Amino acid sequence: MEMDKTLEKVFELIEAKKYALVREELLENNEADIAEIVEEVNDNIDTEKAVILFRMLPKDISASVFSYLSTDCQMDIVGGITVKEVQNIMEEMSFDDMIDVMEELPANVVDRILMRTDKETRKLINQFLNYPESSAGSLMTIDYIGLKKEMKVRDALNFIKIHGMDQETVYTCYVMDNERHLEGIVSLKTLVVSEGYEVIKDIMHEDVISVNVMDDQEEVAQIFKKYDFLALPVVDKENRLVGIITFDDIMDVIEEETTEDIERMAGVFDGSGKEYMDIPVLHHVKNRLPWLCVMTISLMITGGIIAHFEDLMSQVIALVAYIPLLNGTGGNAGTQSASLIIRGMAVGEIELRDAARVLWKEMRISFTVGLILSVLNFIKIIVIDREAMLVALTVALGIFIIVMFAKLLGGLLPMAAKRLGIDPALMATPMISSITDMVSVIVYFTLATMIIGFAF
Amino acid sequence: MEMDKTLEKVFELIEAKKYALVREELLENNEADIAEIVEEVNDNIDTEKAVILFRMLPKDISASVFSYLSTDCQMDIVGGITVKEVQNIMEEMSFDDMIDVMEELPANVVDRILMRTDKETRKLINQFLNYPESSAGSLMTIDYIGLKKEMKVRDALNFIKIHGMDQETVYTCYVMDNERHLEGIVSLKTLVVSEGYEVIKDIMHEDVISVNVMDDQEEVAQIFKKYDFLALPVVDKENRLVGIITFDDIMDVIEEETTEDIERMAGVFDGSGKEYMDIPVLHHVKNRLPWLCVMTISLMITGGIIAHFEDLMSQVIALVAYIPLLNGTGGNAGTQSASLIIRGMAVGEIELRDAARVLWKEMRISFTVGLILSVLNFIKIIVIDREAMLVALTVALGIFIIVMFAKLLGGLLPMAAKRLGIDPALMATPMISSITDMVSVIVYFTLATMIIGFAF
Repeated sequence: MEMDKTLEKVFELIEAKKYALVREELLENNEADIAEIVEEVNDNIDTEKAVILFRMLPKDISASVFSYLSTDCQMDIVGGITVKEVQNIMEEMSFDDMIDVMEELPANVVDRILMRTDKETRKLINQFLNYPESSAGSLMTIDYIGLKKEMKVRDALNFIKIHGMDQETVYTCYVMDNERHLEGIVSLKTLVVSEGYEVIKDIMHEDVISVNVMDDQEEVAQIFKKYDFLALPVVDKENRLVGIITFDDIMDVIEEETTEDIERMAGVFDGSGKEYMDIPVLHHVKNRLPWLCVMTISLMITGGIIAHFEDLMSQVIALVAYIPLLNGTGGNAGTQSASLIIRGMAVGEIELRDAARVLWKEMRISFTVGLILSVLNFIKIIVIDREAMLVALTVALGIFIIVMFAKLLGGLLPMAAKRLGIDPALMATPMISSITDMVSVIVYFTLATMIIGFAF
Repeated sequence: MEMDKTLEKVFELIEAKKYALVREELLENNEADIAEIVEEVNDNIDTEKAVILFRMLPKDISASVFSYLSTDCQMDIVGGITVKEVQNIMEEMSFDDMIDVMEELPANVVDRILMRTDKETRKLINQFLNYPESSAGSLMTIDYIGLKKEMKVRDALNFIKIHGMDQETVYTCYVMDNERHLEGIVSLKTLVVSEGYEVIKDIMHEDVISVNVMDDQEEVAQIFKKYDFLALPVVDKENRLVGIITFDDIMDVIEEETTEDIERMAGVFDGSGKEYMDIPVLHHVKNRLPWLCVMTISLMITGGIIAHFEDLMSQVIALVAYIPLLNGTGGNAGTQSASLIIRGMAVGEIELRDAARVLWKEMRISFTVGLILSVLNFIKIIVIDREAMLVALTVALGIFIIVMFAKLLGGLLPMAAKRLGIDPALMATPMISSITDMVSVIVYFTLATMIIGFAF
């Protein structure tokens, strides 16, 4: 609410070209909020105004504001300022944020920035730019405290006092030998509560959990969630420390992975990491068409199956009115199970070894749900629709069978996908309802032929 | 993978009753992993064996293992050990974890534990037990470092050295006056890099972001995500510090809130915070039936609409085969938009003020998607199905209209819900497809009456 008011005021002041007042208003906010304002100005007015706002910021906070901006807005701003200004911002940013920005910058800007940096840094930047997207390497930073195991606590604290200000975190320190092999970790808490004469090797924690530089970010996120770490060391094949990942980067990863899961489940996967508003219309179209086309094809097959039973339908036209009921109930019943199982696997609650227990649970659930729904429908068709007993029987039996089928399918398909190395989130609404639609009309008309067709 | 092997081994050893070896195997793992093993034994063998395993653990780690267990498993273990043992575990746990457990314990056990604690603690526990579930108060802990602004840095560090070990976090310290009014915060990083003679009030950060004890946990999570905090102070109405919330508790909240969103979107909301496997079959049935019944009712209405056009259908039976196509395409197109908007609002990317932009975007997307799908279907119906031109025209026009309608509905309904204070996640698949099913048959048969009916 407060942000809405601030935005309104800023927009009015820009309109009136009162930039001195805009600056005053801006600086009353903290960096994250200033970034939100710049972002809104860029989205709702234009980039030119956003650049003006950004250039108003004092040097010491502009880098921080920049790192809070979305990638799209960052690139818009970069387009409006000089390479020298970009360079200045980069130098103030933390190493991992800088790498993130560099990955998005046009090649010629990257080249010009690299030309101005020293050889050592240039080599490091190039190395980091080469880590695959969504690998641990692409998330890590090199700004951490490294200690030696022979150090005394008081010397370690002195070292942190001198070097600590520039580091991403000082709360976990990393103990390495001369070849940078990771030997242990020690938290600042431990250092502070220990006596000054104690030696690091006696107080450090040797049983360190680390990830490999090529590990996938999803695995890294699972480890963070399981152990509640503040930071996690990243090592290469020889167990040499190459960087650390901090919890704030992981919170972004978790959010991104969840969004991707939800997108996949709804058949609108984008994968660029961009936000809804920043994705162009034609990209949205491209993301949404494939599943709609799959649905169209499967629904055409469903239609073909229905057409096959034209004779039966023209004899008992009442049957037609219940096709959507069968389709809809099946699709929704299946989606319910699939969503729970997909989420359960995503948060690590349900493992492949639980398949039999999931199946048994879904069987009991679907039996009960199917029974209740079919009885309700049977009564309704007799009492309210006043249809023939045989029609009611066909529909009720059909619902029972399709609910059982849909729930077992929804429970097992995501697990089968995971087993085959396919993303379970693909086995949600579009896929499940495609299959249940086809199966439900087959079941329905087969039942109808057996029950009603027999009577004719 | 490694965990699977460990589990297999533990299960075999339990089978063979070689408990000394089980204990050895257990203690090779860290607390989080031991908890996972106990949990699996409880789920797959029985509680008796899980209790045996739990009792094998050394006193100093059993409390930590206990806090990693799921609530259901905690209660199973509590049922198998003495009240005295429960009390011992509770004393070792951090205050917020202890409160979480107490909220679940049977009243008689809580009473017996309270009887054994001193008056001061008892009062505090009762106060914490009274905070509403999912409020900031229910998440916070009282284990934090409080400082005075007149303190010198060296005295503060000494204070932390003495009291730090028992605190949930020492990385953010809270500066209060004598009435516990929050005056500022200072990070341990700042303390460590400052000189010993500096005074807290000169280095502390005064512009503190805090939450009220009654604020909802979802708001708290948003603040954590926005600012990347390690911890957040919780104050009462008079701005007196009553506790702090740490990032690890918030990661759990974010996961829980996302799971709830996904459950709501699929029409299977549970809300107990329990995991899939821990929810009894009848609870699952109870969670799933309401939406299936809503769907049934709406699908009955859809069926009624279809039945209303019996005459038309018996004349042009070919129309029937395309009903599922219209329903399915509409439902899925709408769900795609709704999922993106719901997620966008959940992560704070899309705000109510963006409604017009969302609408405009969905209009362009749905126009393009609708056009492509309707042309594809028109050609297919003419070329492959060899149906009459008028039937193809009816279906193609129907698809175009229903895709436009569904996408605008999917885009706007979640925002309208939020505006009205209803959870936007309720406006997903079940709701959208209920509405589009009805609308699509009305549109379809109205078009058919106009286009084909006219020809007859």
